[in-house]
Amino acid sequence: MGQKLAVGIDLGGTNLECGMVTSEGAVLHRATRPACADRGPGSVLDDMATLVEMVIREVGASPDDVVGVGIGAPGPLSHRDGVIYKAANLPGWVNVRVPRGIIRRVGLPATLENDANAAAYGEFWAGAGRDVKSLVAFTLGTGVGAGAIIEGELLHGHFENALELGHTIVDPGGRPCSCGQRGCLEQYCSAACLGRQAEQAIVDGAESVLRDQIKPGESLGSRPVMEAAQAGDPLAVRIWEDACRFLAVGCINVQHTFNPERIVLGGGMSRAGDFLLEKVRYHVESQKWNLHNDVPDVVIGQLDNNAGVIGAAGCALRCYTEGAW
Amino acid sequence: MGQKLAVGIDLGGTNLECGMVTSEGAVLHRATRPACADRGPGSVLDDMATLVEMVIREVGASPDDVVGVGIGAPGPLSHRDGVIYKAANLPGWVNVRVPRGIIRRVGLPATLENDANAAAYGEFWAGAGRDVKSLVAFTLGTGVGAGAIIEGELLHGHFENALELGHTIVDPGGRPCSCGQRGCLEQYCSAACLGRQAEQAIVDGAESVLRDQIKPGESLGSRPVMEAAQAGDPLAVRIWEDACRFLAVGCINVQHTFNPERIVLGGGMSRAGDFLLEKVRYHVESQKWNLHNDVPDVVIGQLDNNAGVIGAAGCALRCYTEGAW
Repeated sequence: MGQKLAVGIDLGGTNLECGMVTSEGAVLHRATRPACADRGPGSVLDDMATLVEMVIREVGASPDDVVGVGIGAPGPLSHRDGVIYKAANLPGWVNVRVPRGIIRRVGLPATLENDANAAAYGEFWAGAGRDVKSLVAFTLGTGVGAGAIIEGELLHGHFENALELGHTIVDPGGRPCSCGQRGCLEQYCSAACLGRQAEQAIVDGAESVLRDQIKPGESLGSRPVMEAAQAGDPLAVRIWEDACRFLAVGCINVQHTFNPERIVLGGGMSRAGDFLLEKVRYHVESQKWNLHNDVPDVVIGQLDNNAGVIGAAGCALRCYTEGAW
Repeated sequence: MGQKLAVGIDLGGTNLECGMVTSEGAVLHRATRPACADRGPGSVLDDMATLVEMVIREVGASPDDVVGVGIGAPGPLSHRDGVIYKAANLPGWVNVRVPRGIIRRVGLPATLENDANAAAYGEFWAGAGRDVKSLVAFTLGTGVGAGAIIEGELLHGHFENALELGHTIVDPGGRPCSCGQRGCLEQYCSAACLGRQAEQAIVDGAESVLRDQIKPGESLGSRPVMEAAQAGDPLAVRIWEDACRFLAVGCINVQHTFNPERIVLGGGMSRAGDFLLEKVRYHVESQKWNLHNDVPDVVIGQLDNNAGVIGAAGCALRCYTEGAW
């Protein structure tokens, strides 16, 4: 084919997503399978290798065209050393050398990146941040992840755990978080917290169309809340507004911290599109300071749920073009 | 003399501080005068030039030994373009090209840096961060400023106004800030807020040894509150503890944002030394998360009120050694 390609993998607690990505950031082929994380790292690495070989075969790439594999995974992890220290939603994964496992299985170089960093890099490289040099991208999923690109470089931090913005404290002494802190941002504007709040309010007697959608043993998630809010359900509207207001606080704090050109909202909640964006922008605008005209552009990501796969592949292509491989 | 020197200036709302600094970060001579900011930029630039010439004369430096002048000033400003856009505590300063004014007056190259950035660079280059590659330094003064060094580089941000951590929101809808936002960090742990809270509490009837120290038309400031807290005054203890707890929130948010190796506490409040540090560390420790062992070292700055002057001079020396001058 001639054109250089890379494979991107997004290793989640639920699914393995894998895609063959061009040097322009286009996805040629995509494959998915359940992560089956409880079967342990060896088995998941086998599945990842199978997916890699599958997408190579499907696009008919010659091994020489594929520069390597980029893997986005939940942390804490070390990009530098290629090791997942432990991962909250991958039980039993402790000090797993994921790139080494892939290299051994498929014979291609591999690199590991925090999943939210990979998604941020994807938007920077091939999505909503193609035209800027610095951005912060939120991934609004079960939790709230983020990544920062400063002058073209992902920020990792000394302990390689930078941009855990979901665990910045925006309400000291507030809602308890599973991380052990209180008042973490992700307790106020993640998909999980939207569902949880609706469930709790209904248990406490609130009237809502969501009452019928609650099933024992299942969590509600953000989608029904978002849909009910769009339909005007008062409880859902209140919860959605609160989430947007807190997300705006997150954006303002990013403004005063990184002062980036752009903030990108990605992840599941970002599929609400303008229904999210307009409210977040409104709350950013209504809470903003008057000392300087430095509010970043807040936009919705362009890569949707491909951001992680594209970004991971982009990291791999970058290792190649910079001569690390 | 042979050794390369630079002049550092710290332009504050109250005082002009000026020092001759060696390439090792030692201050050879220091001079101060009131800023008289109300007399306007031209007059203040004249005073700055007089101070520069004075410290050059005092150390007997030949013009060839002095590589240039670094100026730390309140923002918002542009380091790149050498212009103070406006400065809250310098009335009437709008779009003032400070380095150009200095170059014209003293015939030496000059560079402009945000004052909290300069102080952070000072601690990084010649103080409490000499042995690390990344740090965030707070300047706990009337307000709360900060600067970040990432892999040896100051972070400026796209709009050159990064690290305004005093205006990150830690209590949405909370105390109003003069910046127009609510719940800004500096409303909970700056020198000004310590004094203001004590004054308000006493007006509201609280018993405190501070009652006798309040003078009409004068603000109390942080020092009496800190001293009263150390002496066990219950009101002062409560205010001091609250400030330390919020500063710990600021440190935790820095941890989850930059993930630096070290956090340096500087500025007036840092003169409380262990009385500040032990409490901040306690609150960082007691609020910290359990997902990763990545709490940065929190320390007191080593340069005290020389940090701004040394850091500004360090920025000038760096312009010189990197060939920008």
